Amino acid sequence: MGLKYLHTMVRVKDLDASIAFFKLLGMEETRRFDSEGGRFTLVFMSPPDNPDCPVELTYNWDGDEGLPSDSRHFGHLAYAVDDIYATCQHLMDNGITINRPPRDGHMAFVRSPDNISIELLQAGESLAPAEPWSSMENTGHW
Amino acid sequence: MGLKYLHTMVRVKDLDASIAFFKLLGMEETRRFDSEGGRFTLVFMSPPDNPDCPVELTYNWDGDEGLPSDSRHFGHLAYAVDDIYATCQHLMDNGITINRPPRDGHMAFVRSPDNISIELLQAGESLAPAEPWSSMENTGHW
Repeated sequence: MGLKYLHTMVRVKDLDASIAFFKLLGMEETRRFDSEGGRFTLVFMSPPDNPDCPVELTYNWDGDEGLPSDSRHFGHLAYAVDDIYATCQHLMDNGITINRPPRDGHMAFVRSPDNISIELLQAGESLAPAEPWSSMENTGHW
Repeated sequence: MGLKYLHTMVRVKDLDASIAFFKLLGMEETRRFDSEGGRFTLVFMSPPDNPDCPVELTYNWDGDEGLPSDSRHFGHLAYAVDDIYATCQHLMDNGITINRPPRDGHMAFVRSPDNISIELLQAGESLAPAEPWSSMENTGHW
């Protein structure tokens, strides 16, 4: 039985805020589907070099019953990045809290507008420790 | 800034039950990491033809605080399959409830042991409607 990975779907409360967040990470919108009858919108966002690995944002026009404020069940979405310091700086410059700063030059965690946990990993070898990251403390959890 | 999809992580309460479930779907264990110090185990499971698209199962040896019984926030994991009827039959034969049967020959939903929603989509064209699927009703939600 063949099996192929397609996407991970997450439910979002504010579609524009989520699209803006994933664009900040460097992703682009690759597909969109609006259903007037079902009153929902699906937006697929992918890393430019991984068009086959999208996250699917599901936005229900009339709200989403039971969307928890801080689910730990979901886990996270994980992405490798070329320069974790540059990525985190870019996110910070745009108002995103770095919940787990890349003190080790290797790993960071941030949250999407719906508190979806996003793991960022330095591609290849870890970067050399550098300020302000080395001494930046955690904020909240992820 | 380069970006590459790595995996989706989900937290599991019973590691063996979850591994068995993902094996039922046709996935295989591609990597495992045990941390005695951190008291956790990570198991990566991938479709054989998509080794780069794993789901990461996180099992905390001492339990996982706050794991909700039925989170809607996570969304789902989605996989394309060669024969959605054969896949669903295989799952049913192994005790898995088909929450949303493939009445349309195209789409089905099941749940992992942690109630993680798994979407199965027929690869390519939908199959012709066939019993017992055509008249099978939904069970619960997903």
